[in-house]
Amino acid sequence: MPLTKAEIARLRSLQDKKHREALGLFVVEGEKVVGELLAAEFPFAEIYATQEWDHAAKRRGAESAPYQVVTAAEMARLSHFPTPSPVLAVGRIARRPLAAGALDRGLTLALDGIQDPGNVGTLLRIADWFAFDRVVLSPDCADLFSQKVINASMGSFARVAVHTAPLAEALAGVAVPVLGCDLAGDDVHALGPLRDAVVVVGSEGRGLTPAVAARVTRRVTIPRIGGAESLNAAVAAAIVCDNLRRAQAAK
Amino acid sequence: MPLTKAEIARLRSLQDKKHREALGLFVVEGEKVVGELLAAEFPFAEIYATQEWDHAAKRRGAESAPYQVVTAAEMARLSHFPTPSPVLAVGRIARRPLAAGALDRGLTLALDGIQDPGNVGTLLRIADWFAFDRVVLSPDCADLFSQKVINASMGSFARVAVHTAPLAEALAGVAVPVLGCDLAGDDVHALGPLRDAVVVVGSEGRGLTPAVAARVTRRVTIPRIGGAESLNAAVAAAIVCDNLRRAQAAK
Repeated sequence: MPLTKAEIARLRSLQDKKHREALGLFVVEGEKVVGELLAAEFPFAEIYATQEWDHAAKRRGAESAPYQVVTAAEMARLSHFPTPSPVLAVGRIARRPLAAGALDRGLTLALDGIQDPGNVGTLLRIADWFAFDRVVLSPDCADLFSQKVINASMGSFARVAVHTAPLAEALAGVAVPVLGCDLAGDDVHALGPLRDAVVVVGSEGRGLTPAVAARVTRRVTIPRIGGAESLNAAVAAAIVCDNLRRAQAAK
Repeated sequence: MPLTKAEIARLRSLQDKKHREALGLFVVEGEKVVGELLAAEFPFAEIYATQEWDHAAKRRGAESAPYQVVTAAEMARLSHFPTPSPVLAVGRIARRPLAAGALDRGLTLALDGIQDPGNVGTLLRIADWFAFDRVVLSPDCADLFSQKVINASMGSFARVAVHTAPLAEALAGVAVPVLGCDLAGDDVHALGPLRDAVVVVGSEGRGLTPAVAARVTRRVTIPRIGGAESLNAAVAAAIVCDNLRRAQAAK
């Protein structure tokens, strides 16, 4: 059954955050990203694919979703890209509340105003690699449900528990160490084993906001030997995560 | 003295790699990047700035360069950007030969086909932070003299010794350990102190080329605890660099 004009308009509108929020839906497009999310058992609400998409091989995990084959011409109208991909999938936006006391258990990566979608996606991937229990985004981070963030996360979007919360408030009653990167903190190589901790990451240009910086209880420094003034935010976060996991393993 | 049409055309042409190569010049534009390179004492060949640029404060280091004030209208014609910046600087392309045996001394970061300019810049910054002795780019990496690479390096472009060389050949006679990231290598946390080593980094999509992978003498693995299939190339390289420097310091 061909798609109606209204259906096409609805799907196209999901490019914009405003419409995503209004409909409670987001869209991802492309064999790679849809395949990554299906592999991670992400429960898509709708999937549109052309015959070109290899149904037998790539539908794995898609059986439970309303699945519709569309023509290449229809896909060209749905697509957000100049070159349409053979598959486009729609998911429901689900925002997880951050329960009181949640940050006191396990490891949390907290992103303070990271506006670059590629960086947010890369940080989700880092949290996933190091099996952090959750990621908390401040409300001014790049939109979690934008295609750029989801693409950059390489499937980690579907595996990491992500919450959005005002960070300074969320950190207010936290009992576990809150680690922030700084040029004059404790050597990250000397971190003892921490079972529970929050690692806060500031934006590239601006660093941590003052209200979040005030919640940091332990400043850590990645030893610098050369001349660079700083490291990329995701790079610095990854080094802290690696050292945290290393100290736990050595315990 | 106003700029001639020919001068404007010459400066504008430097957007293209082909013209950069023909003229042996590259261009960077913007207060931030020009300021970073001047702070690192990069010897620009030419600098064009509007009155808006604060000469007294920002010219530090520019005294020795042919320095020319242009009108805002002229800058708009020179600029590669929709919104012209108050300063544009021209540098000479200098390619450093890689001397025989150079890789046997100190620490080298070798990039194998990293085509994303942001990643190349980030990797230069990492090499700078950890005071690597040099970076070697395979010829198919993003152009070192493109504005995007230089911007992303945050000034490290001017501080790191960068060479371009066919990697597999350059690694052929190397006597020091050649480290490559792998999912089934030695634990990077167990790296002993290495005074001299080469760290090779493959591209995000493709990994190391087979000829370069064949030169790796020690596969190292960043312990993974969670579900991500891989880490971003720059992130993985940074973790290896941090562990190398940590092992040296602990010696």
